Amino acid sequence: MNGAELLIKTALASGIEVCFTNPGTTEMPLVLALDGVPGIRTILGLFEGVCTGAADGYGRMTGKPAMTLVHLGPGFANGVGNLHNARRARTPVLNLIGEHATWHRAVDPPLHMDIEALTAVVSGWHRTCGSVETISGDVTDAIIASLQGQISSLIVPHDHQLAESKGKVAALPAFSSRRADEGAVEKATMILRQRSRSLLMLGGRALSKNGLAAAARIKAVTGCDLFTETFPSCWERGAGLPVVERTLYQPGQSNTLREYPAVILAGMEEPVTFMGLKGFDSRILGRDQEKVSLAAPGQDVVGALERLADALSAPNGSRLPKGLLAEFQPPALPGGKLTVAKACQTLAALQPEGAIVVDEGITSSSAYLPVTQRVAEHTMFTIGGGSLGWGMPCAIGAAVACPDRPVIGFQGDGSTMYTVQALWTQAREALNITTLVLSNRSYHALQLNLDRFGITSPGPVAKAVTELERPSIGWVKIAQGLGVPAVSVATAEELAREIRIALAESGPHLIEMVLQ
Amino acid sequence: MNGAELLIKTALASGIEVCFTNPGTTEMPLVLALDGVPGIRTILGLFEGVCTGAADGYGRMTGKPAMTLVHLGPGFANGVGNLHNARRARTPVLNLIGEHATWHRAVDPPLHMDIEALTAVVSGWHRTCGSVETISGDVTDAIIASLQGQISSLIVPHDHQLAESKGKVAALPAFSSRRADEGAVEKATMILRQRSRSLLMLGGRALSKNGLAAAARIKAVTGCDLFTETFPSCWERGAGLPVVERTLYQPGQSNTLREYPAVILAGMEEPVTFMGLKGFDSRILGRDQEKVSLAAPGQDVVGALERLADALSAPNGSRLPKGLLAEFQPPALPGGKLTVAKACQTLAALQPEGAIVVDEGITSSSAYLPVTQRVAEHTMFTIGGGSLGWGMPCAIGAAVACPDRPVIGFQGDGSTMYTVQALWTQAREALNITTLVLSNRSYHALQLNLDRFGITSPGPVAKAVTELERPSIGWVKIAQGLGVPAVSVATAEELAREIRIALAESGPHLIEMVLQ
Repeated sequence: MNGAELLIKTALASGIEVCFTNPGTTEMPLVLALDGVPGIRTILGLFEGVCTGAADGYGRMTGKPAMTLVHLGPGFANGVGNLHNARRARTPVLNLIGEHATWHRAVDPPLHMDIEALTAVVSGWHRTCGSVETISGDVTDAIIASLQGQISSLIVPHDHQLAESKGKVAALPAFSSRRADEGAVEKATMILRQRSRSLLMLGGRALSKNGLAAAARIKAVTGCDLFTETFPSCWERGAGLPVVERTLYQPGQSNTLREYPAVILAGMEEPVTFMGLKGFDSRILGRDQEKVSLAAPGQDVVGALERLADALSAPNGSRLPKGLLAEFQPPALPGGKLTVAKACQTLAALQPEGAIVVDEGITSSSAYLPVTQRVAEHTMFTIGGGSLGWGMPCAIGAAVACPDRPVIGFQGDGSTMYTVQALWTQAREALNITTLVLSNRSYHALQLNLDRFGITSPGPVAKAVTELERPSIGWVKIAQGLGVPAVSVATAEELAREIRIALAESGPHLIEMVLQ
Repeated sequence: MNGAELLIKTALASGIEVCFTNPGTTEMPLVLALDGVPGIRTILGLFEGVCTGAADGYGRMTGKPAMTLVHLGPGFANGVGNLHNARRARTPVLNLIGEHATWHRAVDPPLHMDIEALTAVVSGWHRTCGSVETISGDVTDAIIASLQGQISSLIVPHDHQLAESKGKVAALPAFSSRRADEGAVEKATMILRQRSRSLLMLGGRALSKNGLAAAARIKAVTGCDLFTETFPSCWERGAGLPVVERTLYQPGQSNTLREYPAVILAGMEEPVTFMGLKGFDSRILGRDQEKVSLAAPGQDVVGALERLADALSAPNGSRLPKGLLAEFQPPALPGGKLTVAKACQTLAALQPEGAIVVDEGITSSSAYLPVTQRVAEHTMFTIGGGSLGWGMPCAIGAAVACPDRPVIGFQGDGSTMYTVQALWTQAREALNITTLVLSNRSYHALQLNLDRFGITSPGPVAKAVTELERPSIGWVKIAQGLGVPAVSVATAEELAREIRIALAESGPHLIEMVLQ
């Protein structure tokens, strides 16, 4: 058994089930080991950002890492953008990076780069494997670190992959997230009892069904309001679940949150604005508000919420007052020429129970949230780190993790283009993903930003770099060229028809929504 | 005048003429400054790797930096792969990266990343601008550093871009490359006089017309053989120039170079193999060969070659012996079903004088070199760092630098897909680029690598990750969707017809060459 085989055996024994890869020569022993040690589903991406984004989507749905396998420093670099998003979402990810043989690295060959320095930028845990004897323990160390909600990156030199080993497969230690402090639960209990008006902010697993069930119980006895973190990583929503408002992230948009005398932070840090704008505080909450961290990221926030509900003598789920949980009331189908609002209403009216909605709609997303509070139960991802080109790769990971659930990508046209190669993998793996491209033919977020600076008639350069025209992007042809059936629609009726077709047929589809 | 305007004024005064950008909100003051201080041509890329690759192509042709303008850490990360290629090619590049306002960065907002650590991985020079007062000097420092043949990366916080400045535009100091040591010229002279059989290896600007003219003179009096570095960055070739053999870079391929008793290295380090393979030395030359570094990278290698030629009393160009310079003898047009060899012959037969050939053909490239030694004079780029997705972006930069010269991209299908977004910029800017995609529907380099390991019938995983089938890539549709006219050809006759059409029409074209 060589090092590569020992590594793959260890990964398999530790629960790794999927590998998203774009390998090169230095990773070929690991590719061969994936053939020799069956059990890990290996999926090719034509660009590394597809692989790392897919690992993000997989980790969000399963709570455990997918493996990526990428080629040296340049290959890893191509995946950094989406690893940044995964890092901000606290998604577990295990990256394997092949490295030149140690004796070859010494001559600084053309592809050589300081991979460790690069991995350090986005990884909570990183290491270069020092010999074949440590390889199995390196993998379990990496996986345990990733399960804490971070990126683990293990660099594996080619000679260690090929070296013969008599080593044994290391066992993965048991892992469970840390219990939140009793003092925090007590303090939150006291505040919620004393304050007439409190805010309970939910992040990470607090937005899972169990977390939301406990939050609903707390709301039932305290009347607290529920808000999300700014970029929920995996948010259960819809009928049967409590309505949680999203905390808006642009400067000034969430000023009303400062009116609550007390704030409980569950599974999240204190929220900050996305961009900085002169005259606005970077912190969304005020200095004078009383704040309690019920559970920090990485702690067992669901357990903490349940303990808090119990301490408040909250009723259990079956005895919650009517009206606390959303009832099924989807919006009616709109008609006429497509606008962002009509696109959102149409999707809301048709999206099936169990849908996983990957939201990279950027400026178009805000219209989607209010119309989907009372649709069928679904899961929503948002783009944790703001690095564009995340949605279509992430949808791959969600679809691989949950093959029986429809995945819907809600995509801006600008953001979709960054990792358009993802469509090919969606086609090859026949994944049930419907990508809705909001074609506004611009980087609309930048145009809004110019507005904020008072630029109402931008010059030729500002116009040229914020418009996606000359030429307009032919989404249907691009998708078809990558193997995905595609259509373009300009009315709400056409959109409804095409969404129904896409959801009824298996495999991926793309619908370009030409907005007015 | 704010900091952004001062920065752009300084760049313009220092000779910056082009900006390849994919900006975000933190770069908008710089975008507005590009409108307010006209004179820099600003070109949008839909992915940052397009921008950095274009800067590489521009720098190779002009010897001076293009500017890139990218968004925070994630935007820069998307450009790292092609900056790695530029770094290996010693191309001057000036990167500007917007950063959050310093007061906003302090709260670790979602897009925040350790940008300095990231820039350090690929930059010879990097700095975060500390205040509006230093901004002009920061830019000239960055440009001077880049002119030494390296990547300069300047991070500019948003508040410093917006701050008012009374500062003056800093003057760029005069720059010229360092003169090579007299001792090196003397030693090379002595060796070439003493040794019966010597090898003169040419890298960097040694492969320019002036460098080659001096090399031809040296060959005329010494009979030395001429070879390139492994990955020439900007290589003048064809009729009227001396024939220089390319040094092949895979282990064992260049063993015959060890037979020369003496080697002169002009404008390059000692060559190493691309990959490491057990049983093969990473160094291409032998330990016992006598070696002289005539001029190191960054030194004036053309001047050193001319001094060496003079010291050898070599004839000047007009009195060189017949046969030393290639005569115009293009190959005949082949016919029948396309193979790699026929594709190369067809291109060789038709490529016009002054063509710039960007070679990212990977495994298909070796057949191109021998058939183009005697075609019309042309310039050839190779992929310095081996990071895929370089060719089409690089072609953009070459076409912007030399609008009157046809640019021909010789592309593998696998490598083309990494930065396929480049086609959109080629269309928007109406650049005279003909992209020839060698469609072998595989990562053929990886299949060859499996062969080297003795794997003749790879398992399902190894097959799946090295084949670009299921689905096959529809190049014509993808190109058309991105605004570039495209056709697919399967015979040499069709290819010849389509190359003629593409070269005769202005603007970009893509030709898929379906290989047998």
